[in-house]
Amino acid sequence: MKLATYKNDTRDGTLMLVSRDLKQTCSASDIAATMQDALDNWGAVEEKLQARYEQLNSGKVESEAFEQSKCESPLPRAYQWADGSAYVNHVELVRKARGATMPESFWTDPLMYQGGSDDFIGPRDDVILPSDEWGIDFEGEIAVVTDDVPMACSPETAASKIRLLMLVNDVSLRGLIPGELAKGFGFFQSKPASAFSPVAVTPDELGDKWKENKVHLPLLSTYNGELFGKPEAGEDMTFDFGQLIAHAAKSRNLGAGTIIGSGTVSNKQGTEHGSAISEGGVGYSCIAEVRMIETIRDGKPSTAFMRFGDTIHMEMRDSDGHSIFGEISQTIKKLN
Amino acid sequence: MKLATYKNDTRDGTLMLVSRDLKQTCSASDIAATMQDALDNWGAVEEKLQARYEQLNSGKVESEAFEQSKCESPLPRAYQWADGSAYVNHVELVRKARGATMPESFWTDPLMYQGGSDDFIGPRDDVILPSDEWGIDFEGEIAVVTDDVPMACSPETAASKIRLLMLVNDVSLRGLIPGELAKGFGFFQSKPASAFSPVAVTPDELGDKWKENKVHLPLLSTYNGELFGKPEAGEDMTFDFGQLIAHAAKSRNLGAGTIIGSGTVSNKQGTEHGSAISEGGVGYSCIAEVRMIETIRDGKPSTAFMRFGDTIHMEMRDSDGHSIFGEISQTIKKLN
Repeated sequence: MKLATYKNDTRDGTLMLVSRDLKQTCSASDIAATMQDALDNWGAVEEKLQARYEQLNSGKVESEAFEQSKCESPLPRAYQWADGSAYVNHVELVRKARGATMPESFWTDPLMYQGGSDDFIGPRDDVILPSDEWGIDFEGEIAVVTDDVPMACSPETAASKIRLLMLVNDVSLRGLIPGELAKGFGFFQSKPASAFSPVAVTPDELGDKWKENKVHLPLLSTYNGELFGKPEAGEDMTFDFGQLIAHAAKSRNLGAGTIIGSGTVSNKQGTEHGSAISEGGVGYSCIAEVRMIETIRDGKPSTAFMRFGDTIHMEMRDSDGHSIFGEISQTIKKLN
Repeated sequence: MKLATYKNDTRDGTLMLVSRDLKQTCSASDIAATMQDALDNWGAVEEKLQARYEQLNSGKVESEAFEQSKCESPLPRAYQWADGSAYVNHVELVRKARGATMPESFWTDPLMYQGGSDDFIGPRDDVILPSDEWGIDFEGEIAVVTDDVPMACSPETAASKIRLLMLVNDVSLRGLIPGELAKGFGFFQSKPASAFSPVAVTPDELGDKWKENKVHLPLLSTYNGELFGKPEAGEDMTFDFGQLIAHAAKSRNLGAGTIIGSGTVSNKQGTEHGSAISEGGVGYSCIAEVRMIETIRDGKPSTAFMRFGDTIHMEMRDSDGHSIFGEISQTIKKLN
């Protein structure tokens, strides 16, 4: 099942079903007014949504052309956004670039930060920030949306609570991160609003590409019109989504509609630190990794962070080349 | 105006008005179904709520006895909970206890962490956790609830967006904090669900005790039946709520219903590190501070953290001794 939220001049938008091929859409707001409503009552609405989804795919319900530009993030605001860092390769690289070793425990104990979730950016909306001197970066990730998750549950129970999958652009302000982390309270100001893919899908939509609680497909990031990364999201993911959710739930319940992120998708590529698309590698899902590799290799980074006017696109395609989640497509703009 | 959320077997409860003396209550759900709805549409509903509040206070509307035990936290779940640490004295003490100095910048640049907001605890509900070996502590704080706040606004604009005030018990797991902070991603697992006072009030309810964007009244914390702290929330608050909100909004908009916390209320008391109620001081709003002082004084802490069965009450009274927000009253219980 594929779901989206259309803008409608309300804070939470209106729930839509989207055909598997992303070509047609129909309202689902009579079943659940919003995405959060659907997640709040998943057990009661899933079957009805699924039935209409099948009608939509077979042309048996009135529908209109699906326009990704009409979409909010599937949850325009959420009660929780917690982002892991499951591609430990990415973490090791960050630390290596600044000459620090990585604790062994990072391979067994997930990193996770609490993100702001009150004001997500639409998948086709501009990323608006006051300054491009803050080291603006994209981070391409996968995220799951959960049902209610009980405190202290097992990774297996946690995995059974996954309801939807999305892509994320976890916008990061690299210039603000060192100062924020030095204060010891987390990323706060250095993690502005994130954006999610136009479409959220149930795991069954991925067929055998969803296994062991990971998505086994490349995440495509296109930066200023050039393919920047295509790492395989199922590779080098040290912690699967069941483990990440259980980590989040160690000392608390998670409410329905909780979004848990994978962290920046990153592949080791059989080398010490991966390689760029132009070098025949799978590239990267953020600028920071390229800069790290440049720093390790050349002593200093040469690729700049994003400036006003720069664009980022993120997408994931199935084995036949069809877009699964629609495309995140954003331009960095200055706050007026 | 005083508002509360009564439990009603839904996730967000139902909006109630509460009389100034906390004795009577009446529904406001025909004006706004939930607290979040009221905050989403504050401009449209404030006047109507205020009119009914005046009727309630003068006995001109049908009402029932207000029961704090029927309350959820005013926002049972919220889209954002970001907690400052504005009583820098508290921060300095924490660091002193572990032999670390505090950077000078902490006096000019607020500390703030992003907290989980998807599943707050009711003000009279148990604090349920899997283990009491994790160093369970209370933290008594003040919080504000904001309207929409524009990115990069001034502290003055930020202050004008304050809609409601509440008390908070920011439950903390002291035993998990060092490990979490060492990972550099913030408190995450060491900050389980928080609880808020039964009643949220508009700033005008505090009269001249609300000035310079601070609450100038003592916060009373009673631990296992004994008064533990009565520090004055307006004293030694290095950053006022306007500054804290503006800090949160530096790189993002804040959505209506955002909760911003003050951090643990702590007074210097004209001494190097305050003193306990039993020593004639104003005491503390968390156990950790007592332990810090014991550590500084005796080389090790002697006061234990909370165990299953321990109780914490928090309240704030006006100049005439009347409770303003109702009472947070909780027992620590083991997860079944």
